[in-house]
Amino acid sequence: MSRMLSYGMVGGGKGSLIGPAHRRAIAMDGKAALCAGCFSRKEETNRQTGEEWGLDADRIYKDYIEMAAAEKNRPDGIDFVVIVTPNVSHYIIARTFLEAGIAVVCDKPLAMSVEEARQLCALAEQKELLFMVTYVYSGYTAVKQIRSMVEQGTIGRIRTIVGEYPQGWLAKEDMTGNRQAAWRLDPEQAGRSNTLADIGTHIENTVHRMTGLSIRRLMARMECTVPGRKLDDNSAVWVEYENGASGAYWASQIAIGHDNGLRIRIYGEKGSLHWFQEEGEKLLYYMEDGSRMEIHRGDAVIDSRAAAYDRMPGGHSEGWFGALANHYCNYIDCLCAQKAGEPYREKMDFPDVNDGLSGMQFIEACVESQEKGNVWIVLEE
Amino acid sequence: MSRMLSYGMVGGGKGSLIGPAHRRAIAMDGKAALCAGCFSRKEETNRQTGEEWGLDADRIYKDYIEMAAAEKNRPDGIDFVVIVTPNVSHYIIARTFLEAGIAVVCDKPLAMSVEEARQLCALAEQKELLFMVTYVYSGYTAVKQIRSMVEQGTIGRIRTIVGEYPQGWLAKEDMTGNRQAAWRLDPEQAGRSNTLADIGTHIENTVHRMTGLSIRRLMARMECTVPGRKLDDNSAVWVEYENGASGAYWASQIAIGHDNGLRIRIYGEKGSLHWFQEEGEKLLYYMEDGSRMEIHRGDAVIDSRAAAYDRMPGGHSEGWFGALANHYCNYIDCLCAQKAGEPYREKMDFPDVNDGLSGMQFIEACVESQEKGNVWIVLEE
Amino acid sequence: MSRMLSYGMVGGGKGSLIGPAHRRAIAMDGKAALCAGCFSRKEETNRQTGEEWGLDADRIYKDYIEMAAAEKNRPDGIDFVVIVTPNVSHYIIARTFLEAGIAVVCDKPLAMSVEEARQLCALAEQKELLFMVTYVYSGYTAVKQIRSMVEQGTIGRIRTIVGEYPQGWLAKEDMTGNRQAAWRLDPEQAGRSNTLADIGTHIENTVHRMTGLSIRRLMARMECTVPGRKLDDNSAVWVEYENGASGAYWASQIAIGHDNGLRIRIYGEKGSLHWFQEEGEKLLYYMEDGSRMEIHRGDAVIDSRAAAYDRMPGGHSEGWFGALANHYCNYIDCLCAQKAGEPYREKMDFPDVNDGLSGMQFIEACVESQEKGNVWIVLEE
Amino acid sequence: MSRMLSYGMVGGGKGSLIGPAHRRAIAMDGKAALCAGCFSRKEETNRQTGEEWGLDADRIYKDYIEMAAAEKNRPDGIDFVVIVTPNVSHYIIARTFLEAGIAVVCDKPLAMSVEEARQLCALAEQKELLFMVTYVYSGYTAVKQIRSMVEQGTIGRIRTIVGEYPQGWLAKEDMTGNRQAAWRLDPEQAGRSNTLADIGTHIENTVHRMTGLSIRRLMARMECTVPGRKLDDNSAVWVEYENGASGAYWASQIAIGHDNGLRIRIYGEKGSLHWFQEEGEKLLYYMEDGSRMEIHRGDAVIDSRAAAYDRMPGGHSEGWFGALANHYCNYIDCLCAQKAGEPYREKMDFPDVNDGLSGMQFIEACVESQEKGNVWIVLEE
Repeated sequence: MSRMLSYGMVGGGKGSLIGPAHRRAIAMDGKAALCAGCFSRKEETNRQTGEEWGLDADRIYKDYIEMAAAEKNRPDGIDFVVIVTPNVSHYIIARTFLEAGIAVVCDKPLAMSVEEARQLCALAEQKELLFMVTYVYSGYTAVKQIRSMVEQGTIGRIRTIVGEYPQGWLAKEDMTGNRQAAWRLDPEQAGRSNTLADIGTHIENTVHRMTGLSIRRLMARMECTVPGRKLDDNSAVWVEYENGASGAYWASQIAIGHDNGLRIRIYGEKGSLHWFQEEGEKLLYYMEDGSRMEIHRGDAVIDSRAAAYDRMPGGHSEGWFGALANHYCNYIDCLCAQKAGEPYREKMDFPDVNDGLSGMQFIEACVESQEKGNVWIVLEE
Repeated sequence: MSRMLSYGMVGGGKGSLIGPAHRRAIAMDGKAALCAGCFSRKEETNRQTGEEWGLDADRIYKDYIEMAAAEKNRPDGIDFVVIVTPNVSHYIIARTFLEAGIAVVCDKPLAMSVEEARQLCALAEQKELLFMVTYVYSGYTAVKQIRSMVEQGTIGRIRTIVGEYPQGWLAKEDMTGNRQAAWRLDPEQAGRSNTLADIGTHIENTVHRMTGLSIRRLMARMECTVPGRKLDDNSAVWVEYENGASGAYWASQIAIGHDNGLRIRIYGEKGSLHWFQEEGEKLLYYMEDGSRMEIHRGDAVIDSRAAAYDRMPGGHSEGWFGALANHYCNYIDCLCAQKAGEPYREKMDFPDVNDGLSGMQFIEACVESQEKGNVWIVLEE
Repeated sequence: MSRMLSYGMVGGGKGSLIGPAHRRAIAMDGKAALCAGCFSRKEETNRQTGEEWGLDADRIYKDYIEMAAAEKNRPDGIDFVVIVTPNVSHYIIARTFLEAGIAVVCDKPLAMSVEEARQLCALAEQKELLFMVTYVYSGYTAVKQIRSMVEQGTIGRIRTIVGEYPQGWLAKEDMTGNRQAAWRLDPEQAGRSNTLADIGTHIENTVHRMTGLSIRRLMARMECTVPGRKLDDNSAVWVEYENGASGAYWASQIAIGHDNGLRIRIYGEKGSLHWFQEEGEKLLYYMEDGSRMEIHRGDAVIDSRAAAYDRMPGGHSEGWFGALANHYCNYIDCLCAQKAGEPYREKMDFPDVNDGLSGMQFIEACVESQEKGNVWIVLEE
Repeated sequence: MSRMLSYGMVGGGKGSLIGPAHRRAIAMDGKAALCAGCFSRKEETNRQTGEEWGLDADRIYKDYIEMAAAEKNRPDGIDFVVIVTPNVSHYIIARTFLEAGIAVVCDKPLAMSVEEARQLCALAEQKELLFMVTYVYSGYTAVKQIRSMVEQGTIGRIRTIVGEYPQGWLAKEDMTGNRQAAWRLDPEQAGRSNTLADIGTHIENTVHRMTGLSIRRLMARMECTVPGRKLDDNSAVWVEYENGASGAYWASQIAIGHDNGLRIRIYGEKGSLHWFQEEGEKLLYYMEDGSRMEIHRGDAVIDSRAAAYDRMPGGHSEGWFGALANHYCNYIDCLCAQKAGEPYREKMDFPDVNDGLSGMQFIEACVESQEKGNVWIVLEE
């Protein structure tokens, strides 16, 4: 297995959802093997998970500090670590591995504050370590195709963007027994936002990856529609981008009938581009003269950089796992190039630590807008 | 033709779009015949239009004042008048006919100001004259079905509503030669809003007809995305209804790829209801347990009051004309009942002069919010 | 009303479905007025229907023979008759009016046999009378657009066509009390086929109107899926067209979940064209390079002859009534041209008596194929 | 890695499409590791592929005969072999491994004749070796849900089934340079059918997996629509199932606009079930009363056996890889149970060697029907 990279994981013990998802996505392409981990604070769970994945006993660690130290010193130490712990510990774990000189992949949100996020940006830059934040959706070929069309000027200057991410899983008043709901609606564990932090940031990031646009100012309305909740479950945001274009976002977890209904519509001077996550392998392109075109993964018109990710011809869905695996493919390719002393920056095509910082800025500005009575908040550079 | 009612029309001469549309919709059901009119200020156009529709020469009038006076005094005078002139003259023409004791159907928007609208409400009430404002979309069976399901508590208390009406016809920078664009973008003729007044009010009214909810306060962002325009072409509004529920509306005329993309989604405690005008004969109903159901005009589950409008079984579209014709059917039935001294109020199922007033209040509040820098504006009762 | 034509109707008394549908469609455009009729064999129903439509008492006839004779001799006699009686009487009534020199519109199927249909063709030709058979679906703008694209060679030579018309209304085993079901499943009244005759012929005709292709030979499988039925309720047909292309049709009335699911897909050397009646205002066009385009009524690319029928801009559905009204518009325009001694043949754009004959040939050949054990049957020229 | 099974692969060298697809699907769930292989007859390709996947040099074999013999004798020999070679060699390779006592997974079609398929069935049974044939589509949760609903009688007795699998990739007349096209259209390599053998069998198998129904007799029309071709590129089949229900299938590779458009619609006495591969995570369920319901992977109503395969909640697509991985999960679970001496037959939920045999019978009967002039052919038991 000499050509494969090796990686470690923090979090993602048995029973976790997102840990296995990352392991599956990495495994699909066979470019990296899981070789070390600290999967749970519960010793038994930790050990079992490690054994199930065939880890050597001495690379199943009792905590991330020990893990970072040990892997740093092994000649065959891990090439990168994947952090899939609860949000509150992202920052400290990521910092620990960066300080140990190990590249990091961290689930979103990157941290609990803009300040923490800024520190991680600085540290990654200083150490020249590749840092991916796994906003999954920009891994879809169709999203990359939209970015390519926007860059080529296909729809001209962007005028307005409409983004939404409705879910319905928090619609019930009584969520007793649902562990996800318990921590997400608890300000102690989740911070000052639930819905905007959890899924609103996906709108923010996917729009950014598609268009390159950053937000100049925004105004938010965050609601608790279910009595007794302390954090938002239905929120709307108006934004203004740096180029003067406007945007309107809506994120909800009380929208019965939706699962992961992320939908982005971008309107330019010469056309519009539409993408819907649940049918994520296609996009709609509407032209100035009113022509309506549907473009699928696998079509001849797909940009060659985007098409290069294809594992199967069109018409056979690669799905959400394919999107996440695309991120890992690119991240690993860049890591390999970096290790080989080859140029890698122009290859980079994954959401990184700066995307993570933007997400934190977005959330903080929304909370401030809401607290001040729905007013415009200008985002710091 | 003794059983048919007779009606007159002001506006709608040859070359007009909306005048013929109303004549067609009324003709479909054969419940009223066009017998008088003043179709154009141009004498030749006026005469030709009247002759084409077989009017007697003495009932083709040179202006609406003469028409109201003459019809009032004829023993076989018209039962109602249909006003399809440019917006600026709606108020004065409607007032003239009401004062002559003649029932009125008027295209939306009802007037140019809340004040004018209030006067028409008062006058209609005082004269006990039926007054329809032709917001067409609530004529669809599917919209009536949604209202019925909301009334019956099918989705429980409403929490949030998302409404949009995107069009693309004003996307081009240079609209030279387009007469519609010329007057709609001219504050002298169109008032203080273009997009919100023209199509934003359709969101407002359709939501109101579906749910019965009125707006308590709102905040608007009105944009001119095309340089040099004096009125909005892309606008967003956040609303709060009297029951505390929230709403987010978006209306645009620069959204390339959309024709008349009115879409309303209503989220309640126990389910959600979705309607899209361009596929207007069906609705989606999502249940609390996640079940997704599609309901079509003609289905067995359709409420009997709504089903009573059907001309054809399901699967054969009655379209936009069917929706407008439904309004006329109900209006004429109510008129007949009123004339016969029978009860008619509980039968009334058309948008009336109060809907017209709400529309004016909505527009004025939006303009005020925009002018004050996007702040909350409380609507008067 | 000097510019309007006048028409009479046979059949379509109160309680009928298709009679009122034709009256509505004609009324929409105001090009012809109902002036005579024989709506029912029941005297009371006949008189009431006539009065409701404002007919003079002397033009409400007790039978079609009297009607044809009287209208023939009136100076203001009807310009055409609309026949909407049960199928068994189409032939004799149509013949009677043709012999009286009156143009005919007849609902499909034209007759009960190929022989009857041939006689009507010959008589119409000999008398030079315009004869429309109201296969409604080719009235849709989208269908006309497909014909135009096929004629222009947009998709190249046609290779294969897939057509289907599923309905579900006969799925229940016990149809007691359903009058439609009673006569349609009775060989005495319906002839030798139910489903193929009723809706299978719509596939046959719509394909023919779209492509101009006629069937050279066919093979049919006609089934009674519900025990005890004497006529088919689920049938499939393979066809071969005169150009060598193949076709596969399926018509069913036990296909639960479908209302009027007519769908035609045409595959050529250079592209394909798809149309679905229940969303009848649009079509799909797939290009050789895999591009997928959706074209709507109202779009700029619509052929000018097809676009000329538009009453409303795109995005406001004209529906099934619009399609039927389009047929009447064209038929009446042709009648007027003929009366004025102007050329009219190149204008003709409606399904005529020859379409009616093809329909009868299709049905007879299918029945023969089924009776001989599902074998190929060559159609006569 | 003690808990993982080990597998070998024959075929699937670098540049192959289906080999890597199987490796990815197996890797997703981490239940088996690739440990041996014979990937290509080209020594260099074989060695490189093996090294890339980290195989020990002594388990990269020069041919399948050597591989079967060696693995049979190793104490750590592979638990199963995956055969992804060209169709002509499926039989002989599968037989070799079965004779060596090694369980087999083989891509479809199983063999080149019914006779070969029968021998493999007999051998697998005699050796009590689990044999999966990778018809992928029945791996979708939605397909399993349909089977479950059919079994539970949700739609009553099945009356008719409509299946289609259109593709467009062979639409061009000149396929020079396309290697897939070259061998698939060559009777020497592909046998007596192209389209029906390649994709028509997917209709046959998916219907069988959904409903349990087998075909009693069939009639086929196989066409070469492109001049000069020796094998079918557009074919239709009528079938009759053992319960008397009918079916109509259509498979095409000249249907421009389709990628992998497999669609199955099942009509029963009390409802219908619809599935479309390109949106394969959902199904439509139409009820007797006309209600239309959409059911998604992840919904609460999904049968628990089907839901047990879920890796992610609904709304995040697992795609085609997820479907194939589901087959492997179940196959490996059954293998483990068999090895442990536990009951496994009732767990088996994958298409097996008998499915492979049915596919061969289907193809041979279709070819016979075509050669005899489109007549009914009764299938052997």
